[in-house]
Amino acid sequence: MTETRLTLDRCLARIQAVDPAALESVQRRIDSQAKPIGSMGRLEELARRYVAISGREDIRRKIVFTFAGDHGVTEEGVSAFPKEVTPQMVYNFVDKGACVNALASHVGAEVIVVDMGVDHDFGTLPGVIDCKVARGTANFTKGPAMSREQAVQALEAGINLAVRFKEQGVDLVATGDMGIGNTSPSSAIAALICGLPPEKVTHRGTGIDDEGLCRKLSAIVRGLELNRPDPKDAIDVLAKVGGFEIAGIAGLVLGCAAVRLPVVVDGFISTAGALIAHELHPHARDYLFAAHQSVEIGHRHMLARLGQSPMLDLHMRLGEGTGSALGMGLIEASLKLLREVRTFGQSGVSEGSDR
Amino acid sequence: MTETRLTLDRCLARIQAVDPAALESVQRRIDSQAKPIGSMGRLEELARRYVAISGREDIRRKIVFTFAGDHGVTEEGVSAFPKEVTPQMVYNFVDKGACVNALASHVGAEVIVVDMGVDHDFGTLPGVIDCKVARGTANFTKGPAMSREQAVQALEAGINLAVRFKEQGVDLVATGDMGIGNTSPSSAIAALICGLPPEKVTHRGTGIDDEGLCRKLSAIVRGLELNRPDPKDAIDVLAKVGGFEIAGIAGLVLGCAAVRLPVVVDGFISTAGALIAHELHPHARDYLFAAHQSVEIGHRHMLARLGQSPMLDLHMRLGEGTGSALGMGLIEASLKLLREVRTFGQSGVSEGSDR
Repeated sequence: MTETRLTLDRCLARIQAVDPAALESVQRRIDSQAKPIGSMGRLEELARRYVAISGREDIRRKIVFTFAGDHGVTEEGVSAFPKEVTPQMVYNFVDKGACVNALASHVGAEVIVVDMGVDHDFGTLPGVIDCKVARGTANFTKGPAMSREQAVQALEAGINLAVRFKEQGVDLVATGDMGIGNTSPSSAIAALICGLPPEKVTHRGTGIDDEGLCRKLSAIVRGLELNRPDPKDAIDVLAKVGGFEIAGIAGLVLGCAAVRLPVVVDGFISTAGALIAHELHPHARDYLFAAHQSVEIGHRHMLARLGQSPMLDLHMRLGEGTGSALGMGLIEASLKLLREVRTFGQSGVSEGSDR
Repeated sequence: MTETRLTLDRCLARIQAVDPAALESVQRRIDSQAKPIGSMGRLEELARRYVAISGREDIRRKIVFTFAGDHGVTEEGVSAFPKEVTPQMVYNFVDKGACVNALASHVGAEVIVVDMGVDHDFGTLPGVIDCKVARGTANFTKGPAMSREQAVQALEAGINLAVRFKEQGVDLVATGDMGIGNTSPSSAIAALICGLPPEKVTHRGTGIDDEGLCRKLSAIVRGLELNRPDPKDAIDVLAKVGGFEIAGIAGLVLGCAAVRLPVVVDGFISTAGALIAHELHPHARDYLFAAHQSVEIGHRHMLARLGQSPMLDLHMRLGEGTGSALGMGLIEASLKLLREVRTFGQSGVSEGSDR
């Protein structure tokens, strides 16, 4: 029986490595199918991991969680879009008019927006879960983005989404983000956790020009110098230069690891959340699937730190959960192979010398 | 009105470049959608090309054509599997037990087997189209694989599948292959057309061991020395060291270009067919979508020659149409974005400084 609510500490205490024997058992079954050994490549890995994590071979219900939050650092002119776009896009998600809606629908997934900290009052809006910690972070060039308590609150909100939806029969979730300005905190997190200078992990986000990129890099450098987050303390990093939606994503990844719910991680912002989760528990990464390689230059460093190889490289750079929705489709394809492809014995096909 | 049957010459005479104005018009529409310019990456390219090629924005019916043929060169011990596996797998496709069936079903496509030259009499078998040119090619280490007339016959069979199924309301097709031994002719074709030594484009196929790889390379080298195909004459290349299923694939690609039917090309063997098509008409490549990067070492050289970048890199190496089925799903996703994502005006989202 799953508890209805997990604290961060109890969540971390629950996370265990995925059982290697379960992984091997799925692979043996794949190897009995009428095809050359290993010829389905990474689809075999996806099926193996999904089954070993969840104990299931199908997906009944899947959800893309698009975590939304605003960022005080937008005052520094770090984005090509005005901050009003965050709530405007939340309404667009609810009205099913955004890219993530189209791609989630393509793979048969629902989109649920999680308001972690948008600077707007949505009231009660169907399709939006209210986990608002505050109306946007503070400007991290002038002080910490949030308090440590707020960071933990946001993490626990994410954790408990995993708990709640696993209980409701959701078998696969994906992360997504919406928050004008959120590549800046993501770059700050990447720089700290990967131990890289900010210019190696700071890029154009939604498409800022050269001048804007300089402002953005300057804001990140100033934020890091002023706040001096401790790279060994992921909650300190998250609180000082992070964002509420990034914290929610980190929490979801941790919660998924705790309740054994496979989670597909989207691009740059979502991977910043996954990095925080990984720093808080080294086995969190066993439960996540990196969806795609983002165009953002810092993304590859984050994925390397997580030891993850992305499923797709389609030069996307939007977020929302667009890449992770497509990744869900590949996991579903891999399970279809596992369930439907016959063995050599069943099909009467002669075996090769490859085994 | 489309003719019911096209000869090779009439097919080639019909192929034209895709209209750049049509491509631009789709891109302008994508750029009006509420998202940063270019942020859907290659999905934008897929939608743009599909619409410009076909004049449609949806896909009513889609088919994976799995072209099957046997190869005399299997006498030289070039494969990890016995040649009986070709007809055995055809029965497996018809019974929906193979990998391509699972992945085609995942994307909502039908699988149709095209018997181009299997060394087996299937009689009348639902799900198999009989285009058999002969019961397998001759061993190309002892003479040409087929006559020039047979090569043209096989090309025209492929061409007319495109004509026939386009008339039946099929909007997207994909290529696939089944033929024990067929990486050997594909490597020979790659070596000739790309102007590379055979060892640069010869690999393990379904998983042959080191000794087998040496036998395979030796067979290819001997085949090329004995037959001396003219690299400037693609039909000569196809006849002397090709295969019936490769010719069928080449024909399908040409036929698709002639009738403006977008075609997703699978891995190594299918790309050998696409290379032949490209040598026969330089605009054939405008109509094809390279599905995935195969593990076979020669594949990247072929794709470079075609000027194509694969959509997926999942370390697959099976053929059948498994990669191209997945590719169809990405094209469908790209069209869903085109149709469903609202513009800035429709969604009330503020525009950014990226335009």
